[in-house]
Amino acid sequence: MKFPLLEPTNKAEQTLRISKVRTAMSRYNIDAMLLASSVNIFYLTGGVCRGYFYLTMDKDPLFFMIPPAEASYSGELNIRKPEQISSELEKLGFKRPKIVGLEYADLLYSDVERLKKVFEGAEFADGSKVMREARLKKTEYEISLLREDGMKHCKAYSKIKHCYHKGMTDVQFQIEIERQLRLAGCLGYLRVAGSSMEINLGSVIAGDNAEVPSPYDFTMGGAGTDPSLPVGAAGLELKPGMAIMIDMNGGFNGYQTDMTRCWSLGVLPDFALNAHACSRKILRELEREARPGVEIGELYRIAERIAEEDGFADYFMGHSHKVKFIGHGVGIELNEAPVIMQRNKSLLEENMTLAIEPKFVIPGVGGLGIENTYVVRKEGLENLTPFEEDVMELGIRS
Amino acid sequence: MKFPLLEPTNKAEQTLRISKVRTAMSRYNIDAMLLASSVNIFYLTGGVCRGYFYLTMDKDPLFFMIPPAEASYSGELNIRKPEQISSELEKLGFKRPKIVGLEYADLLYSDVERLKKVFEGAEFADGSKVMREARLKKTEYEISLLREDGMKHCKAYSKIKHCYHKGMTDVQFQIEIERQLRLAGCLGYLRVAGSSMEINLGSVIAGDNAEVPSPYDFTMGGAGTDPSLPVGAAGLELKPGMAIMIDMNGGFNGYQTDMTRCWSLGVLPDFALNAHACSRKILRELEREARPGVEIGELYRIAERIAEEDGFADYFMGHSHKVKFIGHGVGIELNEAPVIMQRNKSLLEENMTLAIEPKFVIPGVGGLGIENTYVVRKEGLENLTPFEEDVMELGIRS
Repeated sequence: MKFPLLEPTNKAEQTLRISKVRTAMSRYNIDAMLLASSVNIFYLTGGVCRGYFYLTMDKDPLFFMIPPAEASYSGELNIRKPEQISSELEKLGFKRPKIVGLEYADLLYSDVERLKKVFEGAEFADGSKVMREARLKKTEYEISLLREDGMKHCKAYSKIKHCYHKGMTDVQFQIEIERQLRLAGCLGYLRVAGSSMEINLGSVIAGDNAEVPSPYDFTMGGAGTDPSLPVGAAGLELKPGMAIMIDMNGGFNGYQTDMTRCWSLGVLPDFALNAHACSRKILRELEREARPGVEIGELYRIAERIAEEDGFADYFMGHSHKVKFIGHGVGIELNEAPVIMQRNKSLLEENMTLAIEPKFVIPGVGGLGIENTYVVRKEGLENLTPFEEDVMELGIRS
Repeated sequence: MKFPLLEPTNKAEQTLRISKVRTAMSRYNIDAMLLASSVNIFYLTGGVCRGYFYLTMDKDPLFFMIPPAEASYSGELNIRKPEQISSELEKLGFKRPKIVGLEYADLLYSDVERLKKVFEGAEFADGSKVMREARLKKTEYEISLLREDGMKHCKAYSKIKHCYHKGMTDVQFQIEIERQLRLAGCLGYLRVAGSSMEINLGSVIAGDNAEVPSPYDFTMGGAGTDPSLPVGAAGLELKPGMAIMIDMNGGFNGYQTDMTRCWSLGVLPDFALNAHACSRKILRELEREARPGVEIGELYRIAERIAEEDGFADYFMGHSHKVKFIGHGVGIELNEAPVIMQRNKSLLEENMTLAIEPKFVIPGVGGLGIENTYVVRKEGLENLTPFEEDVMELGIRS
């Protein structure tokens, strides 16, 4: 197991991340954090380990590793089970924390209950909230990883036109796209926050499958092919007149970009193409308006207003079923803060990421619209997924 | 969303599963279960839904569905959020439960805490334990689904020889195998129990990558290609003299089989081939010995004894790092009960599943051995993954 952020050369990056976590800890009056989720261990060490990262406000952090991980740097300790943490802390002269942050929204109930026993007599607070806040604004190093994801994501999407063969189903088409993503270096595993978010490498939604709701909290649903995973491609043959919306994973290095583009078989009706153009118009407007200090809910309202003005309100973010957000943060997890929804009164800050996806569902045609992953910069949005935004026709040799 | 087990034609299967859950509930003195995980909702309804399944000892179960799911059968109710469950139960004349089972090992801490508020004044118990017990012995219908998985799994494995091209890396080889599995109908999403189990569609472990430990609790490790997902194929070029152990997912219908086979480039040294033969010998012996009533730990001891007698003790279940189990149950999740380890004193019962994987790591060669998924039957083990067990040479046209 490699832990790049524990190497002396990356000490500055780790120190920066730790200071972000401490800032959030002090906001919630938390003395100490004991972290165990892959996501947050990765954030603080640069690698995934079965172990526990212990952080107080003043002392150097400790990394309790469960074998086969082996302690090698200062601050790393080997333990066999979390119950040993308490006496190890005592030996090292750590004083007992009053309020300990544990990952309520990242760990199973039984895991959190087990960790509570490490700190007898302490109070506990939601450490997931702390970590979500700390991770909200990305560091320049994280942004460089996201930029790399975006480039590879775009490169893989440039192969999509070659993935199509006449007579294919949406599932068969998706399989060839998955292969191109994997060949481009996609790790093939998608981290999503929440108990009930399940998906394979993304979704390819063709035609009226865009109308089928899914139990999962993604912007587009899709029936899937089996009731055990009711999301995404449904095994439908791709036919002329269908819009095919492709929203496949861009995770190449522990971070991920989120990007949607549309293809078609044959030329789509003007109404559908105009809805697609409206999505691009919304993105252009948001690219101009989104700046540090702007209320996040305002982005939603701008998008909704443009959709209304252009006559697409009924199709905006779904037709028979609508979702209430037009985007979200993205980073180690696909669905990070902030959520771009009407009632989000928080303000945009520099180095937040935004996957913005104003989408339309046109009955008889399918899903239309674009999703780009952006970083909020002082001067506006930096697009990490610059790629052709027109509806691209499949089956035409070019 | 489809819920096959809620359809009147499948009522008998649902009734059977409910009676299994109730038997386990009474063992733990639990009055009522409120279930929300995909895995257990799927077990009791045949589909995945954002919602809550409420089961008492005597009344018909209730299924509280969150939109976009829509209630259609008797016993289904629409709610917007779990906080409404309490008053709905009161309206329907349900008496307040004394001890409620919640899914401690299947839901996030924050989800369980939210559900506790539905039952003010009640005591709570671990409903995950109840469901694990209920799901331990499969129904004949579940076995038919597992048998279907096994057949499709074998069919996809028969394509592996065509996936290899000279000069490939282990990752490139794995990508082509993933594609064959997906084309055979594999859903591309692997449900694994536990907070810290992460993997893409399985692992292809070549040569000494079998020696590299992983933080995840799988039998073989592998470095992976990135510290964010340190498991499996490592980007190594496949070279003559390497054993290539393939343990890829067989999930086609909400259930899954688990199967490992070995391929090689060129002929392997006798010592490695003999270790592989020892794995097969162990499986043959366990197929004879494993019957209802046999202690599960005994299967481990038999395997260990044969490995010792044949001179492979040092390589059994790893060389520099060893795992302490030779198999596990499998069903909706990859890692179900029972765990086949030395100290498991429970007895085998009819219709348990066992993925048995006696494996060896031979330095300089790689991982060797076989994994089959079995069902425990009165008369012995039924093999759900009957497929060529020899080490198969790649790159030879046949």
